[in-house]
Amino acid sequence: MKAELIAVGTEILTGQIVNTNAQFLSEKCAELGIDVYFHTAVGDNEKRLLSVLEVASKRSELVILCGGLGPTEDDLTKQTLAAFLGRKLVFDEKAMAKLDRFFASRPGRVRTPNNERQAQIVEGSQALQNPAGLAVGGLIEQAGVTYVVLPGPPSELRAMFTESLQPLLNQSSQQLYSRVLRFFGIGESQLVTILADLIDKQTDPTLAPYAKVGEVTLRLSTKANSQEEADFRLKQLEEDILQRDKLREYFYAYGEENSLVQTVAERLVEKNKSIAIVEQGTGGLLQSEVSLALTGQPYFSGGQVIGQLGTESGRCSEEADGIREELQADLGLAVSVLIKSESTEDNVLAKVYIALASTSGISQKEVDLGGYSWQHIRQLACLQALDFVRNTL
Amino acid sequence: MKAELIAVGTEILTGQIVNTNAQFLSEKCAELGIDVYFHTAVGDNEKRLLSVLEVASKRSELVILCGGLGPTEDDLTKQTLAAFLGRKLVFDEKAMAKLDRFFASRPGRVRTPNNERQAQIVEGSQALQNPAGLAVGGLIEQAGVTYVVLPGPPSELRAMFTESLQPLLNQSSQQLYSRVLRFFGIGESQLVTILADLIDKQTDPTLAPYAKVGEVTLRLSTKANSQEEADFRLKQLEEDILQRDKLREYFYAYGEENSLVQTVAERLVEKNKSIAIVEQGTGGLLQSEVSLALTGQPYFSGGQVIGQLGTESGRCSEEADGIREELQADLGLAVSVLIKSESTEDNVLAKVYIALASTSGISQKEVDLGGYSWQHIRQLACLQALDFVRNTL
Repeated sequence: MKAELIAVGTEILTGQIVNTNAQFLSEKCAELGIDVYFHTAVGDNEKRLLSVLEVASKRSELVILCGGLGPTEDDLTKQTLAAFLGRKLVFDEKAMAKLDRFFASRPGRVRTPNNERQAQIVEGSQALQNPAGLAVGGLIEQAGVTYVVLPGPPSELRAMFTESLQPLLNQSSQQLYSRVLRFFGIGESQLVTILADLIDKQTDPTLAPYAKVGEVTLRLSTKANSQEEADFRLKQLEEDILQRDKLREYFYAYGEENSLVQTVAERLVEKNKSIAIVEQGTGGLLQSEVSLALTGQPYFSGGQVIGQLGTESGRCSEEADGIREELQADLGLAVSVLIKSESTEDNVLAKVYIALASTSGISQKEVDLGGYSWQHIRQLACLQALDFVRNTL
Repeated sequence: MKAELIAVGTEILTGQIVNTNAQFLSEKCAELGIDVYFHTAVGDNEKRLLSVLEVASKRSELVILCGGLGPTEDDLTKQTLAAFLGRKLVFDEKAMAKLDRFFASRPGRVRTPNNERQAQIVEGSQALQNPAGLAVGGLIEQAGVTYVVLPGPPSELRAMFTESLQPLLNQSSQQLYSRVLRFFGIGESQLVTILADLIDKQTDPTLAPYAKVGEVTLRLSTKANSQEEADFRLKQLEEDILQRDKLREYFYAYGEENSLVQTVAERLVEKNKSIAIVEQGTGGLLQSEVSLALTGQPYFSGGQVIGQLGTESGRCSEEADGIREELQADLGLAVSVLIKSESTEDNVLAKVYIALASTSGISQKEVDLGGYSWQHIRQLACLQALDFVRNTL
């Protein structure tokens, strides 16, 4: 299926925001075996959007529009698509009911007629509900072309795509199947060097490394007729990768979203262990991440944030044991960051002390870190602490 | 001048990379007073690129192409533009000399005929030298349309734009000047309703609202011959906006990057006040943000994270006062989130208790919040707490 993406929003054309939706949708389409041949961005302008729809309708079978579904006057994607297709806008009942619930539970918020435009769809569309916002999306076919309308805010677009649109598009026989391997403790260039021969000769499955803060992911992809067929090929490649050098040690999880903190949270739940945390120099970032990953679970016992930076000392193990006792948790984790004096503005050097206390004793670790900024060092220190917990558990 | 951007590269269409060049070029064009009306991305495919050039040549006066200037077979931007304009490719002497120097100083590197393609330009072009790479760019006018070719790697594109292209484009006397107003505590649709007449009749200055998590920004822009001229017009519009309803109360800062936590951090520094924080139900998020905004400053005294969610009670003021005393801070801030029982999966309802203690007493506040997820509620609760501190300081 030939597809193209149209992002609507003047803020893209003035450079206020980056069109990250195009990347997300392109990746998802690739996974579904849909070929995306064009991206377009156009402003909140009816005439120009109409001209873009005119071009798109002649060259593509699937046209995905995103943005311009909000409550303001300049949000005109649905109106313009309706005009282009010679249809009118109608209210979607489910979206209206959601709007009603939203305003009923927020007595302070003023409901305006503009809000109700968010619950409209092009007549004849299949509505796409919005799990993360008020604007409803839609899908409609006319003259052999399928038009899809999605909201602009990335959190809403992603949720709507995954929950409402993907099941409708998922009909091609050959699909792209992927498996993401996540590594911590090894750099991208080192990983790529170890895998150079595989990367050079790749055709199918393909292999794409990607560096994130403090970790590297490796996406293995293959086009196949079934999950089993894909699993067979991807499993072979994965085995070939993990048996090289020490890669199996650096590998910690599968999945695009499955971060180190998620992995640790799952282990805590599995092993039925609660954790309390003391942070010095990371300002609450570690607790913020751990508590979010443990949302709805009783395994984060709370903790302490120490305002000053860490100092050269062995206080971490006492802190870890202390917080464990104080908050009656199964585990006490302490992390302390000491910034080294030779740090410069764009090259921050730090020493990180980590200690993990349990009923059976205390284990600890020191790591030297280098980062581009203070925020970068904080993130790396948290990852080190999480990796330490993962290895100890 | 009406302009559009065309990015060439299959890696954009498969979602492997984000088209950040489009944002950079859009921002730069806006600063130069050039109106960008379209962005397009197309793959490394001659036929499709020709069709995109066909459309662009009819609607724009300036067409900026980027990407596809590299040494590999699939890099075909210059060849395709030459074919489109009915011209041939010729070697640029300066670029060839640079290629010679490059390979002379790297005896190990093998020079192939493909490398020399990087030194070609469309016949009749003005060459744009590349301060950060080997591929030369170009600018050519034909039939009233100016075509520009830039390299794809962002570091090369940025350097070439700034050093070689910008001086050629910088001929317009009028530039775009902007001012961003930030509001907290008011929804986008409510703000837009209050400003409906201004938004409807806008020509210059223009007014663009943008909703972020928990806040709304309003970008005021005008084309002017000088900063003074722009300031005069933007100031007038700003006054007109802020005197409406209670908008002055909701307004808290200027600037694209100047978030609520930044504003609070600046106030703390200005007033020389340190702050200690207790969080219940926000898991350390508030301390993580405050400590980051106060990096390098001695005003974050540390705090506590309570693992369980908040309960219906007035404990917040005791907590705020307690942490202030314990950590000997000037201010003690406590925030506690209680999730209401009628919450559903996509509509989380919460009550947030906030208390701020200082030597002169304790002030407190309760707010009802609704959000799409637990993470959303955490963010909103932190913003409420920050807004309370901002108003109290």
